[in-house]
Amino acid sequence: MRRICIILTTRGNYAKMRSVIDHVLADSELELQLVIGGGALLHKYGDIAKSLRDQGIDVHRKVHFLIEGETPITMAKSAGMAVSEFSTIFDNLNPDIVVVIADRFECLPMAMAAAYMNIPIAHVEGGEVSGSIDESIRHAITKLAHIHFPATREAAHRIKMLGENPETIFPVGATSIDVIARLDLDNLEGVNALQTKAGVGPVSDLQKPYLVVIQHPVTTEYADNLHYINETIAAIERLHMNTIWIWPNMDAGSDLISKGLRMFREQKNPQYIHFFKGLPIEHYAPLLKNAACLVGNSSSGIRESAYLGVPVVNIGSRQQGRVRGRNVVDVPYDRLEIEKAVYRQVEHGPYPQDPLYGDGSAGKRIVEVLKTFCFTLQKRISY
Amino acid sequence: MRRICIILTTRGNYAKMRSVIDHVLADSELELQLVIGGGALLHKYGDIAKSLRDQGIDVHRKVHFLIEGETPITMAKSAGMAVSEFSTIFDNLNPDIVVVIADRFECLPMAMAAAYMNIPIAHVEGGEVSGSIDESIRHAITKLAHIHFPATREAAHRIKMLGENPETIFPVGATSIDVIARLDLDNLEGVNALQTKAGVGPVSDLQKPYLVVIQHPVTTEYADNLHYINETIAAIERLHMNTIWIWPNMDAGSDLISKGLRMFREQKNPQYIHFFKGLPIEHYAPLLKNAACLVGNSSSGIRESAYLGVPVVNIGSRQQGRVRGRNVVDVPYDRLEIEKAVYRQVEHGPYPQDPLYGDGSAGKRIVEVLKTFCFTLQKRISY
Amino acid sequence: MRRICIILTTRGNYAKMRSVIDHVLADSELELQLVIGGGALLHKYGDIAKSLRDQGIDVHRKVHFLIEGETPITMAKSAGMAVSEFSTIFDNLNPDIVVVIADRFECLPMAMAAAYMNIPIAHVEGGEVSGSIDESIRHAITKLAHIHFPATREAAHRIKMLGENPETIFPVGATSIDVIARLDLDNLEGVNALQTKAGVGPVSDLQKPYLVVIQHPVTTEYADNLHYINETIAAIERLHMNTIWIWPNMDAGSDLISKGLRMFREQKNPQYIHFFKGLPIEHYAPLLKNAACLVGNSSSGIRESAYLGVPVVNIGSRQQGRVRGRNVVDVPYDRLEIEKAVYRQVEHGPYPQDPLYGDGSAGKRIVEVLKTFCFTLQKRISY
Amino acid sequence: MRRICIILTTRGNYAKMRSVIDHVLADSELELQLVIGGGALLHKYGDIAKSLRDQGIDVHRKVHFLIEGETPITMAKSAGMAVSEFSTIFDNLNPDIVVVIADRFECLPMAMAAAYMNIPIAHVEGGEVSGSIDESIRHAITKLAHIHFPATREAAHRIKMLGENPETIFPVGATSIDVIARLDLDNLEGVNALQTKAGVGPVSDLQKPYLVVIQHPVTTEYADNLHYINETIAAIERLHMNTIWIWPNMDAGSDLISKGLRMFREQKNPQYIHFFKGLPIEHYAPLLKNAACLVGNSSSGIRESAYLGVPVVNIGSRQQGRVRGRNVVDVPYDRLEIEKAVYRQVEHGPYPQDPLYGDGSAGKRIVEVLKTFCFTLQKRISY
Repeated sequence: MRRICIILTTRGNYAKMRSVIDHVLADSELELQLVIGGGALLHKYGDIAKSLRDQGIDVHRKVHFLIEGETPITMAKSAGMAVSEFSTIFDNLNPDIVVVIADRFECLPMAMAAAYMNIPIAHVEGGEVSGSIDESIRHAITKLAHIHFPATREAAHRIKMLGENPETIFPVGATSIDVIARLDLDNLEGVNALQTKAGVGPVSDLQKPYLVVIQHPVTTEYADNLHYINETIAAIERLHMNTIWIWPNMDAGSDLISKGLRMFREQKNPQYIHFFKGLPIEHYAPLLKNAACLVGNSSSGIRESAYLGVPVVNIGSRQQGRVRGRNVVDVPYDRLEIEKAVYRQVEHGPYPQDPLYGDGSAGKRIVEVLKTFCFTLQKRISY
Repeated sequence: MRRICIILTTRGNYAKMRSVIDHVLADSELELQLVIGGGALLHKYGDIAKSLRDQGIDVHRKVHFLIEGETPITMAKSAGMAVSEFSTIFDNLNPDIVVVIADRFECLPMAMAAAYMNIPIAHVEGGEVSGSIDESIRHAITKLAHIHFPATREAAHRIKMLGENPETIFPVGATSIDVIARLDLDNLEGVNALQTKAGVGPVSDLQKPYLVVIQHPVTTEYADNLHYINETIAAIERLHMNTIWIWPNMDAGSDLISKGLRMFREQKNPQYIHFFKGLPIEHYAPLLKNAACLVGNSSSGIRESAYLGVPVVNIGSRQQGRVRGRNVVDVPYDRLEIEKAVYRQVEHGPYPQDPLYGDGSAGKRIVEVLKTFCFTLQKRISY
Repeated sequence: MRRICIILTTRGNYAKMRSVIDHVLADSELELQLVIGGGALLHKYGDIAKSLRDQGIDVHRKVHFLIEGETPITMAKSAGMAVSEFSTIFDNLNPDIVVVIADRFECLPMAMAAAYMNIPIAHVEGGEVSGSIDESIRHAITKLAHIHFPATREAAHRIKMLGENPETIFPVGATSIDVIARLDLDNLEGVNALQTKAGVGPVSDLQKPYLVVIQHPVTTEYADNLHYINETIAAIERLHMNTIWIWPNMDAGSDLISKGLRMFREQKNPQYIHFFKGLPIEHYAPLLKNAACLVGNSSSGIRESAYLGVPVVNIGSRQQGRVRGRNVVDVPYDRLEIEKAVYRQVEHGPYPQDPLYGDGSAGKRIVEVLKTFCFTLQKRISY
Repeated sequence: MRRICIILTTRGNYAKMRSVIDHVLADSELELQLVIGGGALLHKYGDIAKSLRDQGIDVHRKVHFLIEGETPITMAKSAGMAVSEFSTIFDNLNPDIVVVIADRFECLPMAMAAAYMNIPIAHVEGGEVSGSIDESIRHAITKLAHIHFPATREAAHRIKMLGENPETIFPVGATSIDVIARLDLDNLEGVNALQTKAGVGPVSDLQKPYLVVIQHPVTTEYADNLHYINETIAAIERLHMNTIWIWPNMDAGSDLISKGLRMFREQKNPQYIHFFKGLPIEHYAPLLKNAACLVGNSSSGIRESAYLGVPVVNIGSRQQGRVRGRNVVDVPYDRLEIEKAVYRQVEHGPYPQDPLYGDGSAGKRIVEVLKTFCFTLQKRISY
């Protein structure tokens, strides 16, 4: 019986791994070891421990490693703490495989701890070209990982180019599409109910055309994040459409973005915007599907939006280098450009579905491979 | 004035970086920030802080991160501590460039801390194909580094294949050759004097043909290290030649190797072997140059030995994948094979010098580049 | 020249140490080593680094050790990180004396690091009997400290009873009184100006009688904090007077208190309350001096309020065992009792000044002692 | 069913807690949670995990927190790591009581982690007056602990003087006496067999009069430890009796003591001394019982020796302030004084048994109390 250790450190991780978790749980020959930690434990980013409990899923360990401060030094210190904490967890749980997801700053520590402890690593969403430090982290994880589950054919090719053995690379599509594929995407009742209970600001009427805005910090351009958010705020102010605004993640720079948003709210008290700290995917996906346009720099603007056919205005460098569907328009950090692009996308309306990032079967295929794959711990560059 | 931060964590690092340190110190437009830590601070691996002081070189920070135990879990925990400690040091010293050397377990933490703090990373000795976890570490560092100083053309090619921008890759040769190139390699008086003062066992007569043995642990084959060392011990016992045996490094598994050596010494009390904990390069290089054969799995059997033309018997997987000169014979962990190969190499005698791993100018060339290179923090895979 | 290391981890620390800092800076034979860290670095608790810079005071080190979560496990983990970080700082700064203030959870780590590194420890505000884990922390620090500056004669006696050498005990009064003694306590313009710029809620008219409320978590009764704050909220709601409410500190349980306050604000939107995250002492002291009553469990209700003669309603166990002036009425966590007591205190009006906790010269006397005291590192219980 | 968490960090701890462990295991209403860590995991100090396994006792967690270096900074850093690691363990095991033993540097971190996590602490061997930093640590732990098991009436009195509630103080005798009381103390066969298998140096003939030497570092006099050990070495050299020498513990300064001993061994190769890294109590107690004299600064010279009636020469400040039986002679660090005192003690021969430190029932009494004691988490000084 293989022990599969899955570590969720954000609400996004949870959404991404849900189909994998379900398939592991459904398989009597696999044992799930679920660890939640970091941002996934913080009330301010949404409590996923509760969500899991509500669905009857056991959490095997909780792990705290975030050092307060949200600056580059605290990010580095948090990473060090993460290495140490994950080491203890791997020592306690003794997993056969550790699943590392994508490119967050705590993912390289996970991979490092597992590699140093001779535990095979499965990497989900490797091979992508993004912007910011995330790209370096992602490729460094690839060089430590023993098996790869990229989301696209293009990413799979890049992993091969990085010298990984082709027999360890399985392009399965994005797991996040799996979750969306099971949802009733035209039902907005859940989001409407949430608006009255969570977040701040008036309830937006989602029968009318509305925008969704998500702008995360760009960590390599730390000091500019206040400027960046202010350009977006200015554009949204001029557009003055119904808007659902989702709070940034906790990367370095999020304090500046939060500051910009707080000042905006306190000074302008915008009646057309409802702010959420975060949204579970079952609410986020229908919200996105029916949006007139998604604005910002979230990766969901590249991936999920392709499957959903939603018009997207992607701002700045954060999603640089990721393959895009036709539904995405890129703009710089400039209020006028943002405004014009959103205007055009709202005019255009929905795009056709694009399977570029997956067709809804990624989780199933990942678990099939994890169950039987014969790992070679000793990696060797394959040129 | 650029601040160049160089971190030495082993005596080997010090040897490797000596010419770089000298060239940085000699340049009035560069400021050296020297950090020593880990094994380089431990008496049992040789005290390099004293060596540096004796040469009038300031140490800016000492850093302790090794957690006792020498098992995979303590290696991982030590790595976590290293990330945290290096973060503090980078925050205090505010370097313009951090120089990361090769592939030890503490090097990925250094690179991670620097990358997360937006400090440019120069990687020395990237692109090599070794064995054990070191290879994964080395390539992961490459994916975080901003500029690369590989030791060979072959390594430079591999770094390019890993998707690094060719304009950031400078094949300068191995820095360790620089140090050797300045030494009087036929003078064995230093080693002889040391034999009477340091290490254990009788003084070997270096006028007669002698062997040098260095066998480090293979971390990915942790539990086998006792078996491995016992094969080597058996071969050396049968050869019964004058031998200088140098103690293993502190990677996971070194406890097993130490155990094997201690049992051998206590039970057999071999009168033809002198054991050293470690040797400074000024003693090690002449010792190697004049050896009848180097036996074991030290990287010096691949690199320095090419320049020195010394016959080498390389055992097992640790140096797998590194380009070799004609002077190297590879054997498995088998006492008879080891014995036969040593016998043949002693018969053969010295080989001609081979510039495969450098010609003695690596340090000078590295410092020229560090002084003027224009760094781009935002890395992007270059396919 | 003695190096005096002072560590500020909260805004309150800064207020308390201001006169000590000023006297150290004014003395040419002493060198100040100022470290700020923990909550003192977090925007959400008020940025004191900036306050210091504005006054031309250098900060020698910043130290991050708070792990996000605000639960008992993260408090313990933060304490561990604090020990490690303070060790590095003491190693770098090499102080002659470390000054440890009072009883916060990070103070025992400071004292432990200093004691283990053979650095003399001066403890300010030892010997007090409070409630919660703080009391244990405080006395444990006393047993590690080499010299003691209690705020009251009663506290000095208790330190002596704890087996400390009487020659190391100097009852100097509370340093926080020093700062207040220098202020223009009848000037409320500063607070009024702040109300328009900081905090949330309408501007309170401070010409009318007003309450000040501060309720911190009780860490040993972690789960009850939500209940506790709700009782206070209910009382304040019924009193319906002008109120300035100051946010709790970051001890375990503060998340529950924050939750209670947020729910109250969102559901009731009280127009008679202005909320501040924190207030610098130059605004807090006049605010307190002119308040109709201070409500809650802040230590300022016991100490500063004695000097200021302000009526206080102290709730629950947090200040248990501290000597009180006549101006304090104690009540349990009960909305009716709180309401009644506040009502009576408002009726009563101001009390006469009481020097119970100091007369304004504590900082001067502390620095005189630090300058010349001859420390004995080897402590011995003195019975 | 109460969960009792016992943490062993040295071989000495194991000896001390053996009777407590046995009584907890024997009680069906108690659950033992056994943690071993630090020095107890290191080969060089003797492997107690194996000893426990051999007796069928489960180890619930292993914990590594010792940072290599053996200097004050690494002791402080190790303490920080210990706080963090013990926090994780307490969070995982969720004990009802944590048992903290005596005064080692890692014991205050244990107590701190437990106190901050609201877990009741039982302190064994509080209230003693020793020398060095240990005394401060011991009393600081007392101020965090909720129940106390001192070894002597004198120590119990001191704990009461420290302001602890008399109802929480139980003078039960030293647990280490329990173990001894069950042994066949005249059987030296075990030690003799060990001499041929473990340690270095020739086998001592224990039929002849012999000395036992144990000298630990004095941490507050760090730099003097080399001098101290050299005085003892010189005295032993002149006495030239059969000697069993036991290696020092790992406190700061042990590197200097080890250095002194290594130099002595290499230069003089003393044929009358057998060196052990450590000895299990079943061998150590008979060895001690039959010794002509115990020399050094081990606490066993004060405690166990009283019960055994063995002549002791106690050197220097390390055991200062502990109550002594008539069998102890104190001397300074002076080779002549040491020599003379040993000579006289050997002349004198065995002393009568003294119950000063216990009668062999401590473990039984401790477990009876732990089983039923009603803890009050909120401590309050009791003056």
